[in-house]
Amino acid sequence: MSVVQRTLTIALPDAEIARRLSPPPDGVRTIVWDLGDPAPDAAIDLLVLRYMIPPAELRGLEAVSVRVVQSQTLGFDGVSESLPAGIVYCNAVDVHEASTGELTLALILASQRGIGEAVTAQSRGEWAHAQHPGLAGKTVLLIGVGGVGREIERRLTPFDARIVRVARSARTDARGEVHGMESLAALVPEADIVVLAVPLAGDTRHLIDAEFLGLLRPGALVVNVARGGVVDTAALVDWLAAGRGRAALDVTDPEPLPADHPLWALAGVIVTPHLGGHTDAMAGRIDRVVLEQVRRLQAGEPPLNPVLGG
Amino acid sequence: MSVVQRTLTIALPDAEIARRLSPPPDGVRTIVWDLGDPAPDAAIDLLVLRYMIPPAELRGLEAVSVRVVQSQTLGFDGVSESLPAGIVYCNAVDVHEASTGELTLALILASQRGIGEAVTAQSRGEWAHAQHPGLAGKTVLLIGVGGVGREIERRLTPFDARIVRVARSARTDARGEVHGMESLAALVPEADIVVLAVPLAGDTRHLIDAEFLGLLRPGALVVNVARGGVVDTAALVDWLAAGRGRAALDVTDPEPLPADHPLWALAGVIVTPHLGGHTDAMAGRIDRVVLEQVRRLQAGEPPLNPVLGG
Repeated sequence: MSVVQRTLTIALPDAEIARRLSPPPDGVRTIVWDLGDPAPDAAIDLLVLRYMIPPAELRGLEAVSVRVVQSQTLGFDGVSESLPAGIVYCNAVDVHEASTGELTLALILASQRGIGEAVTAQSRGEWAHAQHPGLAGKTVLLIGVGGVGREIERRLTPFDARIVRVARSARTDARGEVHGMESLAALVPEADIVVLAVPLAGDTRHLIDAEFLGLLRPGALVVNVARGGVVDTAALVDWLAAGRGRAALDVTDPEPLPADHPLWALAGVIVTPHLGGHTDAMAGRIDRVVLEQVRRLQAGEPPLNPVLGG
Repeated sequence: MSVVQRTLTIALPDAEIARRLSPPPDGVRTIVWDLGDPAPDAAIDLLVLRYMIPPAELRGLEAVSVRVVQSQTLGFDGVSESLPAGIVYCNAVDVHEASTGELTLALILASQRGIGEAVTAQSRGEWAHAQHPGLAGKTVLLIGVGGVGREIERRLTPFDARIVRVARSARTDARGEVHGMESLAALVPEADIVVLAVPLAGDTRHLIDAEFLGLLRPGALVVNVARGGVVDTAALVDWLAAGRGRAALDVTDPEPLPADHPLWALAGVIVTPHLGGHTDAMAGRIDRVVLEQVRRLQAGEPPLNPVLGG
């Protein structure tokens, strides 16, 4: 197949990523544009979005001709409402899953082994030896077995916990049984730890509500590395304030959490500021995705991981 | 073989463990004694020590006839200096290794993923998003491949780090090469993370000294779950205060760390109060060891894991 090789215009959100991709591949011209100002070009072949850009800002693409948008996040809740017609939106697959799996274990282990309490005692110069619950032998209810769920499961396996997996629909895979969402009410009472790794969608919004929390064992831990909206925050606050359980939240609703939000100060809660995918491994993984999109555009192939539009 | 079955006297350090072992096995009488007061019996077949008892307290056994002492810790640095002659001292094997492996990953992940910073920001109600280094792709120098080292390695394996193992002497095992201590100077400059999992002994005291620290990369992380004395604390404080690296310490020298010690307040440091083996899994594992010692005493077999005396 003969492909016409015209120069592609790639818009990058900041000078840092432009520097990393410099010099650009042959036949590619890069510009820096973050949607805030008027577009420097009327036609953009590939637009790379700023990491964690609020979806509403995508309305700024109305006035520009953009073929493909590459996001730096995996989740794309809220994007379809703001994405102008005719633009293909691709999410960032194989960029954040491993880092989010890492952070999930960090949150589980920090909560189970008293790292939060130790850091607080450390600020007072206090050696506060105490027994903590540990992870071995506990039952972990892992809700979501997509890319992030798999990375969590892989890292959790050697910790000798019992892993119970739940997905939208029941199935069996190489690692055993995956329960369907309809089994949740039966499984929740067995859980010491619940890990949320599902996309935010109509059927997962407020999946963790007062009814779900009411089924949990006293002292159970809820870990959210998905999206804040998967949890009914008001119900969670009530449950935590009553001393019925613990939480480790990398995502919140609202996000960022306002300074006066009750979640900050409740006992047994660790809040991290959406660190999930954000490690020093991220840049190289994003660059790889961008270069693959460029290769596909130049080869006339469909883009990688289109999830909306087009 | 015919064994004379006389009643065994087992001294337990607190009412809690006595309750767990109640009713005792046939032919066993349990008493509660913590070495503080005069011994309630002149002759004790098996004495279970209080968890983390200072070794000097073992001098209190001079006036009592004790056959076997069962410790609740794995390390026994300082015990030989205080143990009266003729008493067999057994350490606690298969009690703390898994929990210490768990805590090691908690410390590595908390340090690499900014959990300490997040907990501190949380106390101010502050959403402090930042990039942290992560664990994937990093080089972890694991010093010590005994029971604890193996449990650390097993849990570390799925995190996609490069694990370089070091032990007293070089060898090859099923998982590959183990370097000898003589290779440390060559290996230390490659390490992003150093994990200490060696017993404290003459040749490991101050293994981490100014020279070792001077060979580390800027920003490297030193994790100590072994014994405080494996690190030269003064050299570590200097290295940390100069902003040259980070530390996560579950054990310190001195221990407990006094309230005015500089380690508490240095940036990039997490101090946990010797939580290593102390989870809710510990009690069941200790009970199993005690019951096995009872079985062996009744059967006339040598005790489990004698490491000193006898």
